[in-house]
This record gives sequence, structure tokens and C-alpha cells, in this order.
Amino acid sequence: MKSNNSILSFDDICKSEKRIRNHVIKTPILTNEFLNEKLGARVYFKAENFQKTGSFKMRGAANKILSYQEKYKKFPEKIVAVSSGNHAQAVANLAKIFGIQDNIIYMEKKASQYKIQATKNHGANVFLTENRKDTEIFAKKKVEEGYFFVHSSNDDEILCGQGTACLEALEEIEEIDAVFAPCGGGGLIAGTYLSCQNLKNKPKIFAVEPLIANDAAITFKTKTLYSFEESPNTIADGTRTLNVSDATLPYIMKLDGIYEITENDIIYWTQWITSLLKISIEPTSALAMAGCYQFLKELKKQNKNYNPRILVILSGGNMSAATASTVWQNDHLINLPQI
Amino acid sequence: MKSNNSILSFDDICKSEKRIRNHVIKTPILTNEFLNEKLGARVYFKAENFQKTGSFKMRGAANKILSYQEKYKKFPEKIVAVSSGNHAQAVANLAKIFGIQDNIIYMEKKASQYKIQATKNHGANVFLTENRKDTEIFAKKKVEEGYFFVHSSNDDEILCGQGTACLEALEEIEEIDAVFAPCGGGGLIAGTYLSCQNLKNKPKIFAVEPLIANDAAITFKTKTLYSFEESPNTIADGTRTLNVSDATLPYIMKLDGIYEITENDIIYWTQWITSLLKISIEPTSALAMAGCYQFLKELKKQNKNYNPRILVILSGGNMSAATASTVWQNDHLINLPQI
Repeated sequence: MKSNNSILSFDDICKSEKRIRNHVIKTPILTNEFLNEKLGARVYFKAENFQKTGSFKMRGAANKILSYQEKYKKFPEKIVAVSSGNHAQAVANLAKIFGIQDNIIYMEKKASQYKIQATKNHGANVFLTENRKDTEIFAKKKVEEGYFFVHSSNDDEILCGQGTACLEALEEIEEIDAVFAPCGGGGLIAGTYLSCQNLKNKPKIFAVEPLIANDAAITFKTKTLYSFEESPNTIADGTRTLNVSDATLPYIMKLDGIYEITENDIIYWTQWITSLLKISIEPTSALAMAGCYQFLKELKKQNKNYNPRILVILSGGNMSAATASTVWQNDHLINLPQI
Repeated sequence: MKSNNSILSFDDICKSEKRIRNHVIKTPILTNEFLNEKLGARVYFKAENFQKTGSFKMRGAANKILSYQEKYKKFPEKIVAVSSGNHAQAVANLAKIFGIQDNIIYMEKKASQYKIQATKNHGANVFLTENRKDTEIFAKKKVEEGYFFVHSSNDDEILCGQGTACLEALEEIEEIDAVFAPCGGGGLIAGTYLSCQNLKNKPKIFAVEPLIANDAAITFKTKTLYSFEESPNTIADGTRTLNVSDATLPYIMKLDGIYEITENDIIYWTQWITSLLKISIEPTSALAMAGCYQFLKELKKQNKNYNPRILVILSGGNMSAATASTVWQNDHLINLPQI
């Protein structure tokens, strides 16, 4: 694996896939005929809600820790991580599996209570901080003390691990026209970008963000890294990052675009995906479908009869009762999806 | 297939399985390590929420219509059905697939609006009645006019079709100690009973009902058919039947017991199954797990170290936004399941 300043390639995703293969679930691809009919498209959902610990974060974290083990022929003795929730659960689970007892996970107080509890359930040492910035400061101190840092996105091995979700999907589905993935720190979308680089017909690749957490979209438009002061309070809690990471930025700048989604539309698609696919997803997952829908609306204005094949990466399924309660407060199922 | 007065056997389930095989989905078996650890058991979930039209009802309805086709070498020209929702969707979908344009489905006004809409979405002719009894009266008139009646439970072909869910599961899992399925009209549990009759180690078989819709439990205890005057207003809307059917009664009387579940416990298990398995189930599905939990609590009092293998049949995943909103009103995820 190359250093953070180098440019990664498709091969790095393939190597990562081999490295983590026995430690992750090959999640299913789901489709829905009713939705495809309504949208005039074929939408393939990569269901990472069925991944171990309930999200794609398992892939990157496994790749990071197994890379260490590959290099030093042993697991790190002490690890530290910072997370808004899903990365925390992945690291906690891996620490348990690999027997890394000296593990510390920093989460900010306003992280999902459900995700904090789930992380503790894996037996991890969770410390809560006042805000997002403090988690980073505390983690840095631990790194200075010799802890191995499993960052949630600012790391080549992490983003290559996340890219294996798309790689797996592309092995099953031929000739994809466009790919959509949510964007927090950017690991998933950067890895997704890389995993598409070996295809003959390169699909368009789009990141999707909440409108109220649109740091990546601003960064993309202004070509200058934009960072929030405090983590935005979107229902898509997997995207409550302050900014995209240095490691993911070069790939994000090469995307075909970034869609920005209202909270209402995030909830609309959370309800509809749940209802049609009979799976439980967290709102962050619905972002990708909401972006896909906006893309299709634009596309159909130009060419009504073109039925594109689209890959939508559902990032995870870890949702608190409080979030679920907000999701189901109003009935969005009375408004059928249609273009 | 024998007449309603005869006793069906395991072979009838096998024949039904062959008949409907190409028209239904072989749904997955799901497990969860966290839950198994907490309960001291191995619980296998048969996920009929992933069945076509979102519930096991597809199996029975397909078996009924395909039996006609087998006998008369053509599909019935006009069909009528009565349903609280899931059976309606199954019949509507089959009418569409088999090209039976003259179809009528009676649903009572207070049936789930979501299920009524979903039935209409399949292109079926839905008529709403004031109450449950009226649906039966109107359907009878149609039968007199020559319509082919696809009853939701009072029919040998229907209950044999429903039994194929358990049959499929038993082909994948060995040595099951107990099986749990929800009970409305009784088709699923009767079919489940029959599908277990060829096993060397016969599992205990339990029906599970809402406490406020416990007609089967009363019937089981008193050995006299008990019928509600009006359909009970349980959140488990798949069990809003007035009584168990004549066709299913003989098998229900042979069960090992019937568990009665509070509305609170139905909601508790709806939340936990959603959260652990990352699937969307309707509250009726959660009944089976709630029954399993009561069984385990009793069992563990007697023998703490016995870790039974249990099959829980999740009946479906069709849930309105209103029902989901009720399900997620309070946070039950703060109380971990444990024995």
C-alpha cells in the first residue's frame, strides 16, 4: 500500500479485497421491480446494512488492522479510534475478534446513543467528549503515546477497504451507468471511485450528502477544503463529519458530481427503501438513493427512453429508536416514487 | 389433495412445495450471534418478509390457484378473496401474473390503509366493507355467482401452501427442538405442524397470538371454537381474524401450546428483530419471537444449560408508516433481551 501522498489504483482495492475477504460478509445485491418500473431504470442496491456490525465501516477497519498484521506479523497491541458510531462498532468488534484488549474509542456526546451502546456491547472502552474536535485531540495524544490509530477515513488502507463494497458489487452486475454512495469523511466514495477505474465502460460516480452537511459539495465546487465548525445535526448521522479527509480529497475532486439532499428527502427514501426491500437501513443509506433519484429526474428530461443501470450503495443499518421514530413521524408512503 | 374433512399429511406439504416452487422465493434463514448469546439458544429466523408480496401468504394462494390449474388445465376465470391485507396482496399479484382479470378482493375499512393501497397497486379490484363479517357475506354471494374462492386459511390447499415455509427451513436446519409461528386464521401454524410430521426428532410446535386477539388460545384451552364479534384491534394486524378456520382447527388442537403476547411485547420484539437482523418486519412477525422468548424463560428455569435450537417463522414485512410510527414511539432498545 502506498503512502497518503501517493495515488492509489484499482489494484490496491483488489489487494484489500483479498486481505479482508475472510473477515467480512459478501453482502447481497437487492432490486425491486416496482421501483424499477416507476423510475424507468434498473437500480441495484448493495446492502451493507447486512455487513458485520451493520455497516461498510467493517471493511476499512479490517483492512487497516490486517495490513498492520501483514507487515509486522502480529496485531497492534493498543489501538485508538474516533467515530460518530459505525466505525466505532467496527473497530470495537475487530478489537474483540483479534484480542486487542487495549482499545480506546472516542465518540462525541451527541453521537447516536444507540451506536454508543452498541460499541460498548462489543466490549470496547468508549470515552465520550464534549464535541467532535475534542475526539480528534484526545486521539492524537494517544497516538503520541504509541497507540495505533484506526482513522475512520483519512487513511489509504481505510478507503481501499471501503472500496471493496463496490468491487464486490461490480463482480455481480455488468455495465453500470452510474454509482451513488453517501459521503461523510469520504472513505466510501473515494474507495468506490477507485474500484470503478478498471471498467471498460466507466460509470459516472456521484457522492451524496445532506444539504445541511454539504462540506464535500462546497469543497468540490470551490476547490478549497471546506470544514464545519461543529458537526451538522442531520438525521443521516453517518455524515456528521466536519470535512472530508486529506486522503480521500484527491478522489472526491475527480467525481462526476455531488448531490445535496434535504432532510425531508432523506426520510422519504428511508421509508420507501424499508417498505420496498423489507430491510432496515439508517438514513445515511437513503442518501445514495435520493441522489440517484435526482440524477434520474435530470436524465429523463433529456432522454425519456433511456433506462440506465445504477448501483446504489446502502451504507448501513444501525438506527436508534429515536431516529426511527423521527423517520416514521409522517407518512411518506402515500406519495409513490415516480419520475 | 384431500377434502376439508380428511386428515392431511406431510406428503401433501411436499406436493405443494413442488407445485409452487417456481412461483415463490426460497427465503433466507437468518441468525444473530448477539441474540443467541443473550438467550442461550440458537434461534433460526425464516424470513418470509422477503417472500413475493412481502409475506408467506403468497405460498398458500399460489398453491390454491395452481391446484385448480393442475386439475382443470386452465386458470379460474374469476376469483374472489377476503383479507386483512397480506392475503389480498398475494391474490392480487397472482391474478396479475396469471392474467385473471375478473378478480374481486373484499377488505374491511379498518384494514391497514397501506395494505389496501398495495393491493390496489397490483391492479386488483378492491372493495371495502364496514366490518369483517360483511367481507365474508359478500364473498359468499360471489361464490354463488360462480367465482373461485381463494380463502385466506379455511382450505386444505391454502394451509398446505403455507406449510412449505417451514418445510424449506427444515431442509436447511437440522434437529430443531421447537418451532414458533403466529396464528390468525391458522393456515401458517397448521401447515407448519404438518411439515414437521416426518422428522425423527419431532420438535414442539407452538402458535403465538396477541393477548387481545387470543381466540385460538381460548379455543385450544376450552376445546370449543371461540370467535370474536369484531376483529380485535391489535398492532399485529395479520392476526385480526375473528376465529381460526375449520380446516386448520384439527391441527391447531394438536399443537404443544399457544402463547399469548401483550401489545408491548409485540412492539419490543419488532424493534429488536429490526435492530439485530437489519430487516423490516411487521409486528405480526414479532409474535413468533415473543412466544419463543416466553418458552425459553420457562425452559431455562428447569434447565439452565440446555441450549435449544429453535425455528421462528417471520410471517411478513408489510407495515404502514402509521404502524411503524407506533412501533418506534418508545425506545425498547435500551432494554437488552436476556433470560
